[in-house]
Amino acid sequence: MQTKILLDENEIPTHWYNVVADMPNPPVPPLGADGKPLGPEKMLAIFPGNILEQEMSAERWIPIPDPVREIYRLWRPSPLVRAHRLEQVLGTPAKIYFKYEGVSPAGSHKPNSAVPQAYFNKVAGINRLTTETGAGQWGSSLALAGQMFGMQVRVYMVRVSYEQKPFRRSMMQTWGAEVFASPSDLTHAGRGILERDPDNQGSLGIAISEAVEEAASRADTNYALGSVLNHVLLHQTVIGQEAKKQFAKVGDYPDMIFAPCGGGCNFAGVSFPFFADKATGDKRAQNLRFVAVEPASCPTLTKGVYAYDFGDASGYTPLMKMYTLGHDFMPPGIHAGGLRYHGDAPLVSQLYHERLIEAWAVPQIATFEAGVLFARAEGIIPAPESNHAIRACIDEALRCKETGEPKVLFFNLSGHGHFDMASYDKYFAGGLEDYEHPDEAIHAALERLPKVAA
Amino acid sequence: MQTKILLDENEIPTHWYNVVADMPNPPVPPLGADGKPLGPEKMLAIFPGNILEQEMSAERWIPIPDPVREIYRLWRPSPLVRAHRLEQVLGTPAKIYFKYEGVSPAGSHKPNSAVPQAYFNKVAGINRLTTETGAGQWGSSLALAGQMFGMQVRVYMVRVSYEQKPFRRSMMQTWGAEVFASPSDLTHAGRGILERDPDNQGSLGIAISEAVEEAASRADTNYALGSVLNHVLLHQTVIGQEAKKQFAKVGDYPDMIFAPCGGGCNFAGVSFPFFADKATGDKRAQNLRFVAVEPASCPTLTKGVYAYDFGDASGYTPLMKMYTLGHDFMPPGIHAGGLRYHGDAPLVSQLYHERLIEAWAVPQIATFEAGVLFARAEGIIPAPESNHAIRACIDEALRCKETGEPKVLFFNLSGHGHFDMASYDKYFAGGLEDYEHPDEAIHAALERLPKVAA
Repeated sequence: MQTKILLDENEIPTHWYNVVADMPNPPVPPLGADGKPLGPEKMLAIFPGNILEQEMSAERWIPIPDPVREIYRLWRPSPLVRAHRLEQVLGTPAKIYFKYEGVSPAGSHKPNSAVPQAYFNKVAGINRLTTETGAGQWGSSLALAGQMFGMQVRVYMVRVSYEQKPFRRSMMQTWGAEVFASPSDLTHAGRGILERDPDNQGSLGIAISEAVEEAASRADTNYALGSVLNHVLLHQTVIGQEAKKQFAKVGDYPDMIFAPCGGGCNFAGVSFPFFADKATGDKRAQNLRFVAVEPASCPTLTKGVYAYDFGDASGYTPLMKMYTLGHDFMPPGIHAGGLRYHGDAPLVSQLYHERLIEAWAVPQIATFEAGVLFARAEGIIPAPESNHAIRACIDEALRCKETGEPKVLFFNLSGHGHFDMASYDKYFAGGLEDYEHPDEAIHAALERLPKVAA
Repeated sequence: MQTKILLDENEIPTHWYNVVADMPNPPVPPLGADGKPLGPEKMLAIFPGNILEQEMSAERWIPIPDPVREIYRLWRPSPLVRAHRLEQVLGTPAKIYFKYEGVSPAGSHKPNSAVPQAYFNKVAGINRLTTETGAGQWGSSLALAGQMFGMQVRVYMVRVSYEQKPFRRSMMQTWGAEVFASPSDLTHAGRGILERDPDNQGSLGIAISEAVEEAASRADTNYALGSVLNHVLLHQTVIGQEAKKQFAKVGDYPDMIFAPCGGGCNFAGVSFPFFADKATGDKRAQNLRFVAVEPASCPTLTKGVYAYDFGDASGYTPLMKMYTLGHDFMPPGIHAGGLRYHGDAPLVSQLYHERLIEAWAVPQIATFEAGVLFARAEGIIPAPESNHAIRACIDEALRCKETGEPKVLFFNLSGHGHFDMASYDKYFAGGLEDYEHPDEAIHAALERLPKVAA
């Protein structure tokens, strides 16, 4: 029985797919902190013009430069895998497929955008990038990408992660990046926080402030973000495009697509190319359902509001219309660090608002239970983020068992868990908790939303 | 430029290749501790008959059962990769290829033998296996393999590793294995040592004694070994067989093959199928060189003697004719745990003794330097064991740069370093040491070799 559906390197997509071209309504634009439409000049301090063009483009297809495709060849196309053994364990009539993005050197889908972001900065004459990282997936991907184009990369890593996850830090250093614990004494933002609180453990919001401040204040340095923005979602569409070719090879087509959803780039990457089928009237796609899976403890889509909010905790970024729990929301310390963001990508938020996609929230312990079940059936030990999609997919497969429906279920296995074994340890020791996000906390955070006209 | 040379699943080899059929002399047999030829009855207490048949077979081709090939499909065939970027960084006219075995769920080549060992025990009616593990590569591979066939696996993990490498332990537990720190209070051997020394940190020799003792004393339980024995080397030949098909696809053929060499299964796996070409008069192979790369701190082939010795520290195993530094040799604490074995596989030893293969010894710090250079060029962060092959290959590529020779160099990238980042940390911090094995220590250890007739 065929297990892996592979593609040749010459089948790596030649273009990224821009979902904006197929959305029923144009994307809601970002605003300045004053509530007025945002001009590109402010963004040019930290992003190159070629990336800002992608950010605002409505073109359906955007070419992937050859030097980016050359780097993609190091691990792409990634395999599509039929999970025969998982189906058997569950006793489901459903067919289960997953796309495995853990084959990248950094171990997740994140290099799909890190590589082009490094490249576009390089051709714009920039040789130095800053970024932030929490759990370390994005920071290590940008470190890898920077090294591929001979660029310097500085990563501000949330202090608590810097201390608890030294191996993600070593990984970034192996690829030549500088890594500093944030808050640091390298920026005004960092020094200010350390003066008030020398033991501050850091947050993604603070780390973003430090990385943005440095990029904005140095002409030779730009900033790179690992999710949320349109161009990041765009770059990830190589995942779904490859998957479509792979499904075609075995004459199958998904009925439901599941992906973990934090900032949204993972979900967008696997879903949007199939969304194009649905939008353009492809018959097979007419009943296709897209499920963004988020943690019950950080239920942005399922419990947040659709409003203009800042992308970071400190309010340095433009205002974006998105599902949000409030920009100063502090999610509990769940182990899927990539899913602890207070908001969702504007494009994903808009599609959800227009009821074109669904969102499910799943509790932490059940995600690890699903991850272990998966690892024992298929071998691969998934990242905690990926376990969210696996949980949702298994739940649906079990429903199919009850109803007898032979649905085709497809999820994105966005990364491996080799750097997350401490969380598996905690799961086995019974030390994980489930957090239900209290409604009062949401109300309180939403009252602090920025007041803008829109 | 093509980077990865892939095969379809139906190109997974159907047979293992047995080098015994092509060796100029029959293999030197193992002896009992009394120096007399060893009957199979003693081995049957811990190994099933079907595996002992493979151990003693002289057949050239041994069929791979379908259930084993089904599990191989989860990650095999592994890619052959042309290291264009490394060639460019080195400025060498040589072509560099590597086979990447880190794609297995356990992250190394070890499951190639763990899966058939679990399977052959299963069909022999055994549902429970014991083994030992040091750094954890073999233990995690057997945990994975046992889970695939619904078998219980108990791993005795050297105590110092159990404490220092908790994530390899979590990995084994994720795949359902029991893991105990060795010495443990579960065996006579373990209890005896703990009585004398309650703080004993363990050794591979002690862990082997515990695993063998338990397997020998329980009818429902067998023992599995991760290297050295003929059948383990046999199973690994899927690597070299696939590589030959992959080289044929691009019309190339190696001039030199490099592999890290500890117990020898990694080296054997990639080399032996090419050795078959040479032995059977294939013209392309007539100048082909095979290089077993070992640590300068544990220079079994380059500084050991060819003699009968025990496979374990305590002298529980049969005597095998092999290159050895003495069975009670304690190698220094280098970070390539898989290469710290006092001896070498009898088949590898015999080929070396007959000057059909070469051995190079490389110092620790230079191997990490090579690994980092490789990671920065090709993305993948290699295991410390694999860095030995990379070092040797880079040295040869640099020689080619001097001479202008466009040699085809090929090495086995036996695993990734995701669970070895602490050693990279130490390298970056300047905390690694080079150890030259002192001749006096060798003389002393060799004086304690068992006295046998042969």
